[in-house]
Amino acid sequence: MTRGVAGELRHYLGPTSYSLAESRALLASAGELKKSPLRTDLAGKTVGLIFFNPSLRTRSSMTVGAFQLGGQALTLDVGVGTWKLEHRDNWVMDGDAAEHIKDAARVLSRYVDILAIRAFPERRGWGEDRLDPIIKAFARWSEVPVINLESSLYHPCQSLADLMTIEERLGSATGQPLVITWAYHPKPLPMAVPNSILLEAAKFGMDVRLAHPEGWELDDEVMTEAARLAEGAGGKLTVHHDLEAALPGARVVYAKSWGSIRYYRDPDEEARLKAPLRQRWRVGSHHLAQGDDAVFMHCLPVRRGVVVDDDVLDGPRNAAYDEAENRLHVQKALMLQLLSENAK
Amino acid sequence: MTRGVAGELRHYLGPTSYSLAESRALLASAGELKKSPLRTDLAGKTVGLIFFNPSLRTRSSMTVGAFQLGGQALTLDVGVGTWKLEHRDNWVMDGDAAEHIKDAARVLSRYVDILAIRAFPERRGWGEDRLDPIIKAFARWSEVPVINLESSLYHPCQSLADLMTIEERLGSATGQPLVITWAYHPKPLPMAVPNSILLEAAKFGMDVRLAHPEGWELDDEVMTEAARLAEGAGGKLTVHHDLEAALPGARVVYAKSWGSIRYYRDPDEEARLKAPLRQRWRVGSHHLAQGDDAVFMHCLPVRRGVVVDDDVLDGPRNAAYDEAENRLHVQKALMLQLLSENAK
Amino acid sequence: MTRGVAGELRHYLGPTSYSLAESRALLASAGELKKSPLRTDLAGKTVGLIFFNPSLRTRSSMTVGAFQLGGQALTLDVGVGTWKLEHRDNWVMDGDAAEHIKDAARVLSRYVDILAIRAFPERRGWGEDRLDPIIKAFARWSEVPVINLESSLYHPCQSLADLMTIEERLGSATGQPLVITWAYHPKPLPMAVPNSILLEAAKFGMDVRLAHPEGWELDDEVMTEAARLAEGAGGKLTVHHDLEAALPGARVVYAKSWGSIRYYRDPDEEARLKAPLRQRWRVGSHHLAQGDDAVFMHCLPVRRGVVVDDDVLDGPRNAAYDEAENRLHVQKALMLQLLSENAK
Repeated sequence: MTRGVAGELRHYLGPTSYSLAESRALLASAGELKKSPLRTDLAGKTVGLIFFNPSLRTRSSMTVGAFQLGGQALTLDVGVGTWKLEHRDNWVMDGDAAEHIKDAARVLSRYVDILAIRAFPERRGWGEDRLDPIIKAFARWSEVPVINLESSLYHPCQSLADLMTIEERLGSATGQPLVITWAYHPKPLPMAVPNSILLEAAKFGMDVRLAHPEGWELDDEVMTEAARLAEGAGGKLTVHHDLEAALPGARVVYAKSWGSIRYYRDPDEEARLKAPLRQRWRVGSHHLAQGDDAVFMHCLPVRRGVVVDDDVLDGPRNAAYDEAENRLHVQKALMLQLLSENAK
Repeated sequence: MTRGVAGELRHYLGPTSYSLAESRALLASAGELKKSPLRTDLAGKTVGLIFFNPSLRTRSSMTVGAFQLGGQALTLDVGVGTWKLEHRDNWVMDGDAAEHIKDAARVLSRYVDILAIRAFPERRGWGEDRLDPIIKAFARWSEVPVINLESSLYHPCQSLADLMTIEERLGSATGQPLVITWAYHPKPLPMAVPNSILLEAAKFGMDVRLAHPEGWELDDEVMTEAARLAEGAGGKLTVHHDLEAALPGARVVYAKSWGSIRYYRDPDEEARLKAPLRQRWRVGSHHLAQGDDAVFMHCLPVRRGVVVDDDVLDGPRNAAYDEAENRLHVQKALMLQLLSENAK
Repeated sequence: MTRGVAGELRHYLGPTSYSLAESRALLASAGELKKSPLRTDLAGKTVGLIFFNPSLRTRSSMTVGAFQLGGQALTLDVGVGTWKLEHRDNWVMDGDAAEHIKDAARVLSRYVDILAIRAFPERRGWGEDRLDPIIKAFARWSEVPVINLESSLYHPCQSLADLMTIEERLGSATGQPLVITWAYHPKPLPMAVPNSILLEAAKFGMDVRLAHPEGWELDDEVMTEAARLAEGAGGKLTVHHDLEAALPGARVVYAKSWGSIRYYRDPDEEARLKAPLRQRWRVGSHHLAQGDDAVFMHCLPVRRGVVVDDDVLDGPRNAAYDEAENRLHVQKALMLQLLSENAK
């Protein structure tokens, strides 16, 4: 087993865990792995996948990826066949949870070489959720590198795959106009995907245009960080409450629904306010037509006829399947990189 | 990854997906694999297993088989750790399902080399269930070959293993008398197994004798197809409402319970009508004794003391464990064949 | 597949399945595997893991272990994605269970090379639970070796890992003072772990001091067997109703909660009687201080602040993570041994 010393380990927790140069190196490595998928670097090694929530692409691409590198994935569904886990420090554990993440992380570090974790927000409050308590607890106590497979705040494997897809379609991402648009959805979904593509695209110096109705603002600190990254990379970040205003010249329309922070504790009120937005904020081919030969992107899963029209998903401008495939390639690059830089 | 072009792919969806000659070739290959189980043909390859329903033999034999061929199986339990899936075309997805099979199949095709799917009937109506909407949607949209691990209509891996078992015990199946008998069971079970052994045995030219109480007729189109196959192969197909009448000279007694199409929407009425049949339609050694050194077969799982007596299962005429073992061998032959014929 | 003949197979069902000399050989092999983890002995082989109950360490360590030996683990969660299983002989199966263990064990023996099973007590009564009906049924009908991954009575992989840990910390276990202490826990937990460390430590000739409140006596036959083993190995076995009295000179304090046999069918009464014991029977550093440079041990998962104080778990005297790691090594040694001695 590869062992890092706690505190010195490098994890992959968000889009800013790696610099632009490091991210570019990961994309180059992913491109090589796309051409030559089979490796033996992970011979005898196990990647532990811990899911607090459902997954299709993530468990599939991680399991396939680990195997193609010569290793295996071990999947643990928390609460389904495993114990419930506690994350609060100095907590008297007389409730539901039978084990503390501190102990689970230390124990799993004895068995596996990488820990990859999915932990959606628990929706008790955004102030609490935005701290990413579960993934942070794993990162704090694990003695092997940790990969974020989607937390409350970030889904950085997705945004890395997104940038790979953008560069495959458009060449260099730098300076390219990207519209990230909110879309209607019956449920208040997590913000990890919009947060991540926002930061990643800003980091790559894109012309980022964020479109959403008033009341669906993203997290303040994420917005501040995105503005800082955009400035540092010579890119742009603008916000629009009207999707049409954001579209002219767009090369990419990236759709995603997310729940409102303002109405985080009041989903009924959010649903009431959201109902009239249903038609206006569903992406269709007329939106793509307002861009410049624009590509459609979405992290999937997607609700057809609700978030986006069938003809967009079934047409040639849809890059969502490429994004999903590229999850495999970037995650393999990431596993190789984390093992390499955290070795002994 | 092996990629087929949609529409040209060969799938394994039912007993008639392969001709008699092709099925014979699969059995020959399965026989070789039974002698020499380890291969490397699937090195670096993943077989995706998608379960909408429980399984023991199927997930075990597919997982072991993929590994013995040098690959791995990836198991996805729909709704347990994954998203619920929609199969209806042009559907506005504002219900439970978070993802469409069209998208799931396309995405998984980017990760895996074969997709194998179990999807039992949803029991809203036989007219709907008999269309096998879920597995057909996967076959339509997948870009890799699809294996049916039991749908509403068919369980073709089982019937292929059954024919392997019959030929191991009896030599050539052609012309051999096979009784397929309904048995009592507290629940209305799927018809996939009787449909499949009926078609497969007819395809192999057996003397097929179907025995069931009135009211438990199999699907009309399946019966018509079985009669056509029997005629083409020089075999026979007869129907009996009295098990005793079917038994004389039988070399195989194949027991299986199934639910009634006539009372498909009214399980209470079916249960009422079924209750008096309980003793008469439970298979015992006295039934085997009426055949000609007859072998007992069942797909398993089986309820002891309900469908069949303990002494039959625990005696030397029981071939059910061989059937289960042969699932492994025929499925390995099938995976090799599908990869070979669908290779670029 | 390796096949034993039923009745001649060697299984690993409890601490007494192997003699002291055999256990010492397993620990030596485990020590070698800890230094050189990768082997190819299980190439092409599958270890079937059957879980009737949740697990973290066990499924992880078995899956990692099988892979490091060149094989794979196949995990079956009974009732989650598989059928429910019946264990009673000659039972008319018209209840919940769709399959009998007799048939499941025989079928799985055709697919896998080892069957490893976790089956906690069903708590209908200790008289019934102490018979370990599920694991015994598997051992009776399986045609491949069976490993107990925790039954009602025993958790012998844990106690073997415990002895490995003790000898790593203290050198030879023989004669060393070990306190096994009951601890408070809100639920009536299984007795498999205290039973196993009691027997294992007695077998190794330790000075075993069992501490628990009156009413929480362990099973009579287990106690008798432990006394017999202690005598045979030149060790000691004493029982204390006061933890303090057991501690002087202790080299190991092994904490574990368990439910009362006396109040087995009346958990409310047990909870009432247990409440006042909560503070007194929580292990803290003041307890360790009463021993002789004592090490803390626990099988995990553990409830922090309930069973043991945080500072003990987070301090240098905590050997629980080593115990967990050693599960991996002893289980690998065990798999190699069982395959070797049961090979044709």
